[in-house]
Amino acid sequence: MNPPKPSDAIPEAALPRLARYLRKLEQLEEEGLETVSSRRLADAVGTNPAQIRKDLSYFGGFGTRGVGYDTHLLVKELRRRLGLDRERRVIIIGAGKLGTALALYRGFAKQGFRLAAMFDADPRVVGSDRGAGPVLSIDELEDFLSAHEVHIAIITTPAEAAQEVIDRVAAAGVPAVLNFAPVRAVAGPGVALRQVDLSTELITLSFYLAGD
Amino acid sequence: MNPPKPSDAIPEAALPRLARYLRKLEQLEEEGLETVSSRRLADAVGTNPAQIRKDLSYFGGFGTRGVGYDTHLLVKELRRRLGLDRERRVIIIGAGKLGTALALYRGFAKQGFRLAAMFDADPRVVGSDRGAGPVLSIDELEDFLSAHEVHIAIITTPAEAAQEVIDRVAAAGVPAVLNFAPVRAVAGPGVALRQVDLSTELITLSFYLAGD
Repeated sequence: MNPPKPSDAIPEAALPRLARYLRKLEQLEEEGLETVSSRRLADAVGTNPAQIRKDLSYFGGFGTRGVGYDTHLLVKELRRRLGLDRERRVIIIGAGKLGTALALYRGFAKQGFRLAAMFDADPRVVGSDRGAGPVLSIDELEDFLSAHEVHIAIITTPAEAAQEVIDRVAAAGVPAVLNFAPVRAVAGPGVALRQVDLSTELITLSFYLAGD
Repeated sequence: MNPPKPSDAIPEAALPRLARYLRKLEQLEEEGLETVSSRRLADAVGTNPAQIRKDLSYFGGFGTRGVGYDTHLLVKELRRRLGLDRERRVIIIGAGKLGTALALYRGFAKQGFRLAAMFDADPRVVGSDRGAGPVLSIDELEDFLSAHEVHIAIITTPAEAAQEVIDRVAAAGVPAVLNFAPVRAVAGPGVALRQVDLSTELITLSFYLAGD
């Protein structure tokens, strides 16, 4: 990860937990719960109250001792600080099975991520509808990016194509890249790059089975 | 994560890095490199030599000062300690787009993970071939698991079906679960459960864009 602006006080390690708290708090808010204790939130997400209080201390001022957190205010502030209070336009490059699965993934839309376009290099795929409108040709990438603001590019190309595509979206000013291609890609300064490596997850599980 | 056997000295946080070193070392070994310095490995994976030496200190005895690590021995020991020196049989439950994408993902086979079967609840999907042989009915899950040893179950069902399916594979003795369904699932003691939450990755990127 090379964050373009690491000035914020929230450590990156806390982000997956904060995202999880947010989803649970939104659910509790929908159910009409006006305040929530750190104990209740901890039980709901499978952690302990001390961890909750520590993580939420970055947001300060929403908890009242013996009462709990104001659910609505905490949801609002979490969404603002995580950048989820505005629409994020996303493109997916690589309209294969994984790209299509991501295009159809309901969790994205729920958090304000809007799919602006999908791209592919295969002429047999270009023009087809993978559930998010017609797939554009990769040749149109730069034209599209100069006409539309895009916040995040998701890369689901084959491994050998990923780095070139990342270089192209970075050169066109896309500030964040999520790479699913099974290759360690790099991005220049000013571009936030995250790598999702599916085989690493299986290797981690394999490690816990290694004593068999 | 609730590791069934946390006795090993390698900390879980080091596993994604070790998996990355392994992939790079295997590549260097294929290219005929007999020894590799911590500097060279660090440059290749985008970290610093001190981190490499610290992570590889769990494996001890493969480095020679001024010469480097014996590539072949280090690859062998990493594979053994990560449990990658034996075949791991995997099932995928949920033969939708994500499940199919994972079934076809080349990185799995390369690390010794073998897909034993796919399952789905939809009668229109059962019997079709998603690239890994005919999809079995979820009704056959317990029979299959009593006849075949399975090490890891990958869950790509809709959110609302995930917990029940995890309970079923755990009851049938599958020791590890990788859950892609967008829901926080739980598993009893003795079952290693990892959660891959795709929207958390986007939220992390969104956070770095939050200053826009």
